[in-house]
Amino acid sequence: MKVSIIGATGYAGAELLRILHNHPQVQVMHLTSESHTGEDIASIYPHLRGIYMQHLMSMKDMDKISADSDFVFIGLPAGHAMKVGLALEDTPVRIIDLGADYRFSDTDVYEKWYKVKHTHKNAKRVYGLAELCRAQIREAKIIGNAGCYTTASILALAPLAKNHLIDINTIVVDAKSGVSGAGRSAKLGNHFPEMYDNFKAYNVGGHRHTPEIEQAVAALSGEPCVLSFTPHLVPMSRGILSTCYARLKPGVTAEQVDAAYTSMYGGEYFIRLLGRGGYPATKEVRGSNFCDIGWHIDMRTGRVIALSAIDNLVKGAAGQAVQNFNIACGFDEKLGIDMVPMYP
Amino acid sequence: MKVSIIGATGYAGAELLRILHNHPQVQVMHLTSESHTGEDIASIYPHLRGIYMQHLMSMKDMDKISADSDFVFIGLPAGHAMKVGLALEDTPVRIIDLGADYRFSDTDVYEKWYKVKHTHKNAKRVYGLAELCRAQIREAKIIGNAGCYTTASILALAPLAKNHLIDINTIVVDAKSGVSGAGRSAKLGNHFPEMYDNFKAYNVGGHRHTPEIEQAVAALSGEPCVLSFTPHLVPMSRGILSTCYARLKPGVTAEQVDAAYTSMYGGEYFIRLLGRGGYPATKEVRGSNFCDIGWHIDMRTGRVIALSAIDNLVKGAAGQAVQNFNIACGFDEKLGIDMVPMYP
Amino acid sequence: MKVSIIGATGYAGAELLRILHNHPQVQVMHLTSESHTGEDIASIYPHLRGIYMQHLMSMKDMDKISADSDFVFIGLPAGHAMKVGLALEDTPVRIIDLGADYRFSDTDVYEKWYKVKHTHKNAKRVYGLAELCRAQIREAKIIGNAGCYTTASILALAPLAKNHLIDINTIVVDAKSGVSGAGRSAKLGNHFPEMYDNFKAYNVGGHRHTPEIEQAVAALSGEPCVLSFTPHLVPMSRGILSTCYARLKPGVTAEQVDAAYTSMYGGEYFIRLLGRGGYPATKEVRGSNFCDIGWHIDMRTGRVIALSAIDNLVKGAAGQAVQNFNIACGFDEKLGIDMVPMYP
Amino acid sequence: MKVSIIGATGYAGAELLRILHNHPQVQVMHLTSESHTGEDIASIYPHLRGIYMQHLMSMKDMDKISADSDFVFIGLPAGHAMKVGLALEDTPVRIIDLGADYRFSDTDVYEKWYKVKHTHKNAKRVYGLAELCRAQIREAKIIGNAGCYTTASILALAPLAKNHLIDINTIVVDAKSGVSGAGRSAKLGNHFPEMYDNFKAYNVGGHRHTPEIEQAVAALSGEPCVLSFTPHLVPMSRGILSTCYARLKPGVTAEQVDAAYTSMYGGEYFIRLLGRGGYPATKEVRGSNFCDIGWHIDMRTGRVIALSAIDNLVKGAAGQAVQNFNIACGFDEKLGIDMVPMYP
Repeated sequence: MKVSIIGATGYAGAELLRILHNHPQVQVMHLTSESHTGEDIASIYPHLRGIYMQHLMSMKDMDKISADSDFVFIGLPAGHAMKVGLALEDTPVRIIDLGADYRFSDTDVYEKWYKVKHTHKNAKRVYGLAELCRAQIREAKIIGNAGCYTTASILALAPLAKNHLIDINTIVVDAKSGVSGAGRSAKLGNHFPEMYDNFKAYNVGGHRHTPEIEQAVAALSGEPCVLSFTPHLVPMSRGILSTCYARLKPGVTAEQVDAAYTSMYGGEYFIRLLGRGGYPATKEVRGSNFCDIGWHIDMRTGRVIALSAIDNLVKGAAGQAVQNFNIACGFDEKLGIDMVPMYP
Repeated sequence: MKVSIIGATGYAGAELLRILHNHPQVQVMHLTSESHTGEDIASIYPHLRGIYMQHLMSMKDMDKISADSDFVFIGLPAGHAMKVGLALEDTPVRIIDLGADYRFSDTDVYEKWYKVKHTHKNAKRVYGLAELCRAQIREAKIIGNAGCYTTASILALAPLAKNHLIDINTIVVDAKSGVSGAGRSAKLGNHFPEMYDNFKAYNVGGHRHTPEIEQAVAALSGEPCVLSFTPHLVPMSRGILSTCYARLKPGVTAEQVDAAYTSMYGGEYFIRLLGRGGYPATKEVRGSNFCDIGWHIDMRTGRVIALSAIDNLVKGAAGQAVQNFNIACGFDEKLGIDMVPMYP
Repeated sequence: MKVSIIGATGYAGAELLRILHNHPQVQVMHLTSESHTGEDIASIYPHLRGIYMQHLMSMKDMDKISADSDFVFIGLPAGHAMKVGLALEDTPVRIIDLGADYRFSDTDVYEKWYKVKHTHKNAKRVYGLAELCRAQIREAKIIGNAGCYTTASILALAPLAKNHLIDINTIVVDAKSGVSGAGRSAKLGNHFPEMYDNFKAYNVGGHRHTPEIEQAVAALSGEPCVLSFTPHLVPMSRGILSTCYARLKPGVTAEQVDAAYTSMYGGEYFIRLLGRGGYPATKEVRGSNFCDIGWHIDMRTGRVIALSAIDNLVKGAAGQAVQNFNIACGFDEKLGIDMVPMYP
Repeated sequence: MKVSIIGATGYAGAELLRILHNHPQVQVMHLTSESHTGEDIASIYPHLRGIYMQHLMSMKDMDKISADSDFVFIGLPAGHAMKVGLALEDTPVRIIDLGADYRFSDTDVYEKWYKVKHTHKNAKRVYGLAELCRAQIREAKIIGNAGCYTTASILALAPLAKNHLIDINTIVVDAKSGVSGAGRSAKLGNHFPEMYDNFKAYNVGGHRHTPEIEQAVAALSGEPCVLSFTPHLVPMSRGILSTCYARLKPGVTAEQVDAAYTSMYGGEYFIRLLGRGGYPATKEVRGSNFCDIGWHIDMRTGRVIALSAIDNLVKGAAGQAVQNFNIACGFDEKLGIDMVPMYP
């Protein structure tokens, strides 16, 4: 399959290039960047020297990109992927958007949280969290790849929500991310000496991944969902750990919780269940497409605490995009993304 | 004042030495270590070379220590400080225990969580969280210095609990600590290559600081308190950030929350209020005795999210111990601990 | 090819498992560990759960290992690989030793620096630095895989030495390594809080990689070589940067230096020449088998300063081992090791 | 003494504020910043909230600054301190410049390396490396505070140079610095995800600290000095380790080397000699004004390798500035800078 990347110079784009280089069914065609048009990708990312030779194109050359591509991956700021979606609407090119433009079934929610007008409301789109939406992804024209915090959080909560084991309105998601999640733009807050040996929260009550988690939990449980989500920055490059709290419904047993995880994920290669009492660690999934999940029943408080770890750039972005691509192409889902975590 | 440190080779002991060197009213007399008796403190902590010349004594020489000291600081594992407390009971020596032996008014709670028999139940002891217990500390024979996670968490929750602004049984405390909090014993989990670029939770539902926070919240609110507390390890040396969630009682306004913090802490030098919407960062308190606090009202979920940051070895251990010492001695509370945070 | 790993629980062993999982011509048969015999490899390295199911055997079961393997990789402390080499001498099994037992043509040098008696002096062995010894590796029974510091340092110095551009006795190699190079044994010096935000030298004048670099430089230049080598620990997991100084011989021009690098490495995939004035960075090769090299001519001092960066666990250990394996098997040299560096 | 800081918003300025807060003889009067004039210092450095209340002035208000100050510290880019020096020439205000404008006795050298015209060539200035220039500092009008790399490197080399123990033209200085040395301006190379888990050299053969080291070595030895100096960036906030190589002159013994260090530094509080075979570590001096030095005699190569560690912002900038200030004021040299290193 011929693929191109629109907006290739963000960290997710670079990670796609890392992964696609070893995908046996992929030929990377074009890469675009509006701020670096004409430059060599290896001058932007020197670690790619000797591996990728492409010069960066402008997305204005969409006709050429469209003609040369079976699939495009999009890594653009909110509001811009829709332009690509509209431009490719009548072409056979299929789309995986790593941004948020196509993640919401209710575009009013998108507009409210992203402060961007949605201009492609009737797009044929599916939500791109592979383990939960596999069937729809197969035929999709446009896949709205799930976000990083959301992938970790939804996968941790899904068995609890789907099986009605928790009181939905008690959910608290306390999430922690490596700094690559904040992107590649240099700014004071993420200047090395400022962030090293430092830890802090940000966007309390207002992070845009909140409604995406709520959408998924509501769909799984059949109940409306309003939850607390708090992101934090960890002084490390990659990785997300999501700590999810919820009150168990009266009478729910630890065994029921165990069974919910096992039955939902027992057959999933990329979800590794560490069991009740298990402790995922971001380093144990670093560089891989795995999501490790453990859960704890705290009888004193009546709460379940579910923990999940992913690499934000792999299962939280580029890896999941390729997983969705594999599903959409009918390939083995593991093709090109069966990397062993890089440890230590 | 002549002071000695019983159990001086842990990180809290080393931090005491850092602080006491610049305390104008203190002369450090004896240091003990059972595993390094007879060695030079600077051979254990080379950063102290040229500053401290003491040889490490055994705590078996308690008579000499007692005779030469007005105050002893204790940095021993759970269960061992009680031995010192008993040995010094009929002496004029006053005690600040950096461990947990003297933190609990109900020793049954201590015994249950620490799995240690309490042998000094009738000790005249006070809880050593300076801002909350100042009056009692003045006259105390034995001060049970507050724990690290607990100091951060209690200071964040206290105004809410005391003013009955939150539903006590909805409290969730999600706390994150630098690795120095795990002590100086080398073990695989904290081996540099294992913990670097890594993040994980531990002791979910079972950490010993849980009942200490519950004790304080219950005392402040007058209601029994059972809460969720989850500690995490951050790949950094020092610092704790505590993210505290609770549901506001119906009708509570943001202004009431603001007022609770301001009225309780407005006059406290070591508590810096960042206000509603503020984001404390561990690096902004590193090396200092400050506790920075910010709070957020999330109207969507009806929750308040309070954030606090401390240096676990200073305000969470040695700094607070010296603050308590100053109070107990009638000194200016800031004496020797008015360090500016070390940034960056 | 069926391969086994003798001594699989060190970091190099774990890295071999990471790499071999995606090697299309390899089936991993047996893994051994004397300290963890009988345990599951994923209990020692949880990041491997779901990927490797092997139980760890003892190397005492060498007959079974030998019968089931075409190749064995050895990751044992100095002196122990020789036992395996002797045991497999009359079998068709071929050996790649990641340790030092088979790296020296002069075993007296080995014995002097390693303080270990060499018991397999007549072994048919070749030095396993792929770019320099490719021809001999093809037919080798035993390959003494080059060390980590040595790979980086020799590759930086080789064009200079081979082309007689430098005064050999002025070579100074100042090398810096991530902490994984010190192995997985937890000890105080590499305890996270001790090594984080810390930098130091060790083993000045006495590191065992010194004679290995000297052996290679002497062989390339045809002159005896005694050089200074100083290793340092960098507070990071992986990566080596080697800064190599030498005085240029009178009259040597910058263009001659450029030509030496280009002619020697122009066709090498795994050596990426950054050119005169280039600055390799460890992160740009992290997780990959690349060695990035830049060089600088300082006319003021008459010195050339050559810089090289590798991932100590890949090109400095497991990746190079697989590269040597590919050569020895007649496979495409890149098979299974054409990983893109993991950035950021 | 009343002091002001011209250019207070760089890391050295912030570190001066940290130190001066606890200096018993100092009152901080004015702080300037051209880019943040009118702002509160604590809005630029939130860790200072509650401690410093100053609003940032412009250096255009030099008359007021001059009238209110006994001393000014300057933290400005090359070329700008001279303007202050000229403006204050006929005032009683004394100056400590943390930049390079007043470090060179030969201003041609300054102009060549800094590409800046020197406009204050006849300034009465002294070089501000306290241990070497104490006598001149006492009476100085303008003190050109020594640079960070240079302080570490010169202190390591001085006893060797002064006692003619080494061949001056064989000196190689391989230095490593934490990222705070690169300043507070956010740029891609020091963006957290780019520099974390990364190590690299920069400015090979061209770093401006080179001639400053050469000037000092030449002055001490009485011989012209041209040496190699290579700076590297370590993924940590603070600290410099300098590894200095030189060939011993024929017949020089290890004991002579030991004696050179002991006789030169035996009475210096801020220089801690770790002896022959000693290994300084940056963390053991972090936050303090100490310079730790160890040295190694490598008989195989005939070289001495001297190692020194400092905190680049303390002994390498603000701490040394206050040490010079103390000397210039006739105070105890340790006043306000006798901080214990912050460990771990």
